[in-house]
Amino acid sequence: MRKGRQTVIFENAPSIFETASTVGKKEGEGPLSAKFDTVLDDDYYGEDSWEKAESKLQKKTAEKLMEKAKITEQAVDLILAGDLLNQCVGTHYAVRDFDIPFLGLYGACSTMAESMMIASMLISGGMANNAICVTSSHFCSAEKQYRFPLEYGGQRTPTAQWTVTGSGAAFIKNEGNGPYVLGATVGKVIDMGINDVSNMGAAMAPAAHDTLSALFSETGTKPEDYDLILTGDLGHVGSDILCHMLDKDGYNIYPKHNDCGKMIFDAKKQDVHAGGSGCGCCGSVFCGHIFKELKNGNIKRMIVAATGALMNPTSLLQGESIPAIAHALIISTDIENFLR
Amino acid sequence: MRKGRQTVIFENAPSIFETASTVGKKEGEGPLSAKFDTVLDDDYYGEDSWEKAESKLQKKTAEKLMEKAKITEQAVDLILAGDLLNQCVGTHYAVRDFDIPFLGLYGACSTMAESMMIASMLISGGMANNAICVTSSHFCSAEKQYRFPLEYGGQRTPTAQWTVTGSGAAFIKNEGNGPYVLGATVGKVIDMGINDVSNMGAAMAPAAHDTLSALFSETGTKPEDYDLILTGDLGHVGSDILCHMLDKDGYNIYPKHNDCGKMIFDAKKQDVHAGGSGCGCCGSVFCGHIFKELKNGNIKRMIVAATGALMNPTSLLQGESIPAIAHALIISTDIENFLR
Repeated sequence: MRKGRQTVIFENAPSIFETASTVGKKEGEGPLSAKFDTVLDDDYYGEDSWEKAESKLQKKTAEKLMEKAKITEQAVDLILAGDLLNQCVGTHYAVRDFDIPFLGLYGACSTMAESMMIASMLISGGMANNAICVTSSHFCSAEKQYRFPLEYGGQRTPTAQWTVTGSGAAFIKNEGNGPYVLGATVGKVIDMGINDVSNMGAAMAPAAHDTLSALFSETGTKPEDYDLILTGDLGHVGSDILCHMLDKDGYNIYPKHNDCGKMIFDAKKQDVHAGGSGCGCCGSVFCGHIFKELKNGNIKRMIVAATGALMNPTSLLQGESIPAIAHALIISTDIENFLR
Repeated sequence: MRKGRQTVIFENAPSIFETASTVGKKEGEGPLSAKFDTVLDDDYYGEDSWEKAESKLQKKTAEKLMEKAKITEQAVDLILAGDLLNQCVGTHYAVRDFDIPFLGLYGACSTMAESMMIASMLISGGMANNAICVTSSHFCSAEKQYRFPLEYGGQRTPTAQWTVTGSGAAFIKNEGNGPYVLGATVGKVIDMGINDVSNMGAAMAPAAHDTLSALFSETGTKPEDYDLILTGDLGHVGSDILCHMLDKDGYNIYPKHNDCGKMIFDAKKQDVHAGGSGCGCCGSVFCGHIFKELKNGNIKRMIVAATGALMNPTSLLQGESIPAIAHALIISTDIENFLR
């Protein structure tokens, strides 16, 4: 059922059946260390390039998910995936060995939310019984592609974020015991003119603001209705901007907000400046940590809004700014009517 | 209703309400010249880079679509789009000024079919009332990104294809007078080990074979049931391979098959070797030419299967082969039960 311009409330709320996560060495030394299924001790993952390592990260995480969910490829109706590498090759080399119908997405760091949102829509609409959603990012492949070669040893500015080496995968079904995806708010592309690739939090915060404002107003809910309002990878700078922007609109999310990019690293001890970023940031934190919190009842009702910065290095060199997007899901441990 | 592993048949078949198309100068000199809404006389489109020109191509085509369909942005529920540029920036800079919820896709040259397929699924499932699907490609931005700078003047091999400068856009609705999207077959990523970026037809043909085989067997239909079996951009080499592969399986598509990459250029006169390619190839040919043929009754029932090659230049330099995908739609001027 559509509710307003951007939000869909599901008549048959799909259930997140199982998740899996893999992270790199540095992420494994952070505060959420114990939450991930696999922590790599070698960020090359036994491969001879960062790109191949990222692809393996995504493939192994999807395989881990199928193992944990006790399902075969043949039992999976769809796989929805994407990543940050040019032409999403992390994903394509990961899924080519899977005998599963595939839908390729590009939402930059919003991909975990975009894939779970589209999967929920397709499942709720009867187009599939279930789907795997998976995404990844890799610090080394991202630095190489977007900024400087690692060997250059470039100095990072205080607003810069650290791309998470990690992958998250979720298996969503048309039946199950929850947590349930009750609804979703589709984002619009928002560009406020930020052009500093070392301050993507600032570029993405207005997109998160736009989507969360739409979610609150279209569903008639308030920040107090949720145990957690989680953003994907705004980091410390972008999170402050988002909370401030929403506060000016009368939505005080300060007590309920957290951000995967703030949670995955200890910013002071781990020298990551403004926090984590990348498709794998929301992917691994949601699939590694948050899913467990939902399962054990510590979180009952939440929003996850993953944000993506939609530029490339060439477009910035040509004087363009950074467009961004945020997609949001409303997740609850109970099938509830509070959104109707 | 799911039918087999990859195919969905729509209970409420969405209607393709209107289309729009734009092409470059060379495409405007080809056999389909009169079919397109706009033919550019300057492939820079008044911009100062090929990438900005491509973005404008997509934006102007979507605007033309809204003008032809007599709708405002506010009346559009979703826009689904993607392109070949790194991080799909052609799309993002095109849609950032639209006040329309956005879903970003990456399917390489299969994007026109992928976007129309997902839009049809979301509309048929009640998640949206309508959607715009749009994609683009640009010869100059693609050559620069995937192969050689134009200034280098590299010699092209006989199997090489010519990326179409063009854009296609379609407006799909939950009601209308057709043509209707009766069903769709979701592709799998297929990699047969081809690693020659100048022979993408050969890399993509096995993906088209896989999807069309699934479509025929899961729907119980035969090539004879269709007036046209259209592929996206296999070109002359890939088309021959596809027809041969299907023939060996007992599906003789020779009399019914055509390919947008063969149709858009006069291969002999226009020096395009194996034919056209790119997201804009299927986009502009379907939205410019084929939609008119459906509307005037020259085609009553058809398949469109757009193919995409899912590599990037870095992955090929690292010794990888070219994975590919094809997504197929079954389109008819009547709501029919022949698929039930």
